[in-house]
Amino acid sequence: MDPRIRDHAETIVEHSAGVEASDDVIVYLPSNAEDLGVALHELLGQKGANPLFLTYSERAERAFLRNSDEFETPDHELALYENADVTIIARSGPNPSEKADVDPETTAAYNRAHDPVKKARLDTTWCLTQHPSSGYAQLAGMSTEEYEEFVYDAVSLDWDAQRERQSNLVDILNEGSEVRIRAGKETDVTMSIEGNTAANDYGEANLPGGEVFTAPVKDSVEGTVHFDLPLYRQGREVQDARVTFENGRVTAFSAGRNEDVLTGVFETDEAARYLGELGIGMNDAIDRFTSNMLFDEKMGETVHMAVGSAYPQCVGEGNEVNDSAEHVDMILDMSEDSVIEVDGEVVQENGAFIFD
Amino acid sequence: MDPRIRDHAETIVEHSAGVEASDDVIVYLPSNAEDLGVALHELLGQKGANPLFLTYSERAERAFLRNSDEFETPDHELALYENADVTIIARSGPNPSEKADVDPETTAAYNRAHDPVKKARLDTTWCLTQHPSSGYAQLAGMSTEEYEEFVYDAVSLDWDAQRERQSNLVDILNEGSEVRIRAGKETDVTMSIEGNTAANDYGEANLPGGEVFTAPVKDSVEGTVHFDLPLYRQGREVQDARVTFENGRVTAFSAGRNEDVLTGVFETDEAARYLGELGIGMNDAIDRFTSNMLFDEKMGETVHMAVGSAYPQCVGEGNEVNDSAEHVDMILDMSEDSVIEVDGEVVQENGAFIFD
Repeated sequence: MDPRIRDHAETIVEHSAGVEASDDVIVYLPSNAEDLGVALHELLGQKGANPLFLTYSERAERAFLRNSDEFETPDHELALYENADVTIIARSGPNPSEKADVDPETTAAYNRAHDPVKKARLDTTWCLTQHPSSGYAQLAGMSTEEYEEFVYDAVSLDWDAQRERQSNLVDILNEGSEVRIRAGKETDVTMSIEGNTAANDYGEANLPGGEVFTAPVKDSVEGTVHFDLPLYRQGREVQDARVTFENGRVTAFSAGRNEDVLTGVFETDEAARYLGELGIGMNDAIDRFTSNMLFDEKMGETVHMAVGSAYPQCVGEGNEVNDSAEHVDMILDMSEDSVIEVDGEVVQENGAFIFD
Repeated sequence: MDPRIRDHAETIVEHSAGVEASDDVIVYLPSNAEDLGVALHELLGQKGANPLFLTYSERAERAFLRNSDEFETPDHELALYENADVTIIARSGPNPSEKADVDPETTAAYNRAHDPVKKARLDTTWCLTQHPSSGYAQLAGMSTEEYEEFVYDAVSLDWDAQRERQSNLVDILNEGSEVRIRAGKETDVTMSIEGNTAANDYGEANLPGGEVFTAPVKDSVEGTVHFDLPLYRQGREVQDARVTFENGRVTAFSAGRNEDVLTGVFETDEAARYLGELGIGMNDAIDRFTSNMLFDEKMGETVHMAVGSAYPQCVGEGNEVNDSAEHVDMILDMSEDSVIEVDGEVVQENGAFIFD
């Protein structure tokens, strides 16, 4: 077995999920990630934990969804998660487009029926990670071997050092009131973060981690952003999204390609027209866009903003938690001709933080 | 996908497990059986059932067992089975010897801790079947393609016709009192079945099915049996087991190879020295020994006897249910120079039943 798989498993068990003796653990992997499953089971045995191994088969999910017309909340799956302590999930699979021919309304109906299961899963200590596969390498436009290096570099940062480094930015945001982001000729946006709290993501619920994120004060966002990195949504790529905010609300938008995808997002509900998240990518091992948000949003020298729902833990008392059925992250490159300011002080310029 | 896989899935869902709308179903397959998983999920979607897909990974089980020193009953796995209606399990996997280097005492400790899970699983409607693999083909000494044909032939009998045919033997056994089995120069054994009930296995809990089985009256077995087909146990092959019964008890035994395996069985507990089952194989699509008891015990023109525990549903009121930690099936060939008699009447001679 590739020794990097055992290292990855150790990071998941020790750092991300912090598994302890007697924990009832769900290991939820695609069949092509069996090596990772084996490595996890070695460690879970050593810990004295109790693993149950679930298959994450997008082929089987597609087969089920295309042959179903209504859905129920499964009692057995709900009971499983309600009695679990830890959930470890890896994305992988030979073809990330496996569910491209499933009707989005069917998926939405399935998700509604499974919402209690999802909530019970989120109530466990969970870690979402990636196992390399040829399909995800292809999605990234990389060879399989290069993609393996990319994934293992991204998940094996020195997470304690990363937490320390990121805490500099957390402190700045928690002490600050207003963020201004300028990039290129088109992007200039300001927002208040007064009273809200920045979160330090150092590889726990997401592996790789490597971002600092917070919530803007809902009505405070003003200006225009050119999201110059693509957005993948339901198998379609939105390029060059341009969005204008007034009093927090999206009042104008366009895209160089697949603009109707954006229209669909903004028409979902009124809250989808407001920013729920400002995130700043700080994982410098993620040095390129791979069409996989688990990595893309943590990329060094980028900023992402999500329209739609905010993370409640980021929203201070008295501020509104934006609550939408959507949470759509969009990314802009900050490596050149760019600056992040907090209360008028430069925090990052052309991708370089003042504290590094 | 091989169309035989969809046929197999249909037999499982429609005939063996009888899945109905709203059933909470566990699909428990090795990763190399994903095609069967896909076919099952198509049908489970059409049925309106709720599937959960578990991985049956002997590599992960080995990794866990070799790294563990004590075991608990996992709450989450127990809750899963307690809330499930149907369990579909397939054996497959690239290497049936995958757990050959796990200490049998470790496996026994794991099995003790998981006994409540096993009992909850047996309380669901369950079906154990086989998905072909190169490893099981190798175990059978067959090419992979020939083994595929063998498996799909064995699981796709006309099960209604098979039930009818087998009911002839069920009736004879239920009306009879004494069974005598003679084969070759060495085998001549008699046993009472007075008051006990014969079961008709036509592919429900086991797929393939194809046997009629009952329990002998515990103290009634008299004579000697030469089990001329091999017994595989914990990776070792016992050849030419010869066993003598007096007043039901094994009073002498020998084997041409690996006799100490038999010694271990008979020393487990006192009840392991008594017969728990007499089974008569009637699946004529199973025309050869493949070192896989799921098939071997149903082979046409064979009889098997199991020392150890009896099936309670076969034991009539007033007769003792033999209760042992063992249930070890051993098989003899009945195709030549052999006869089964019930109350002195010939029922089968040289493999041919009187009712066929």
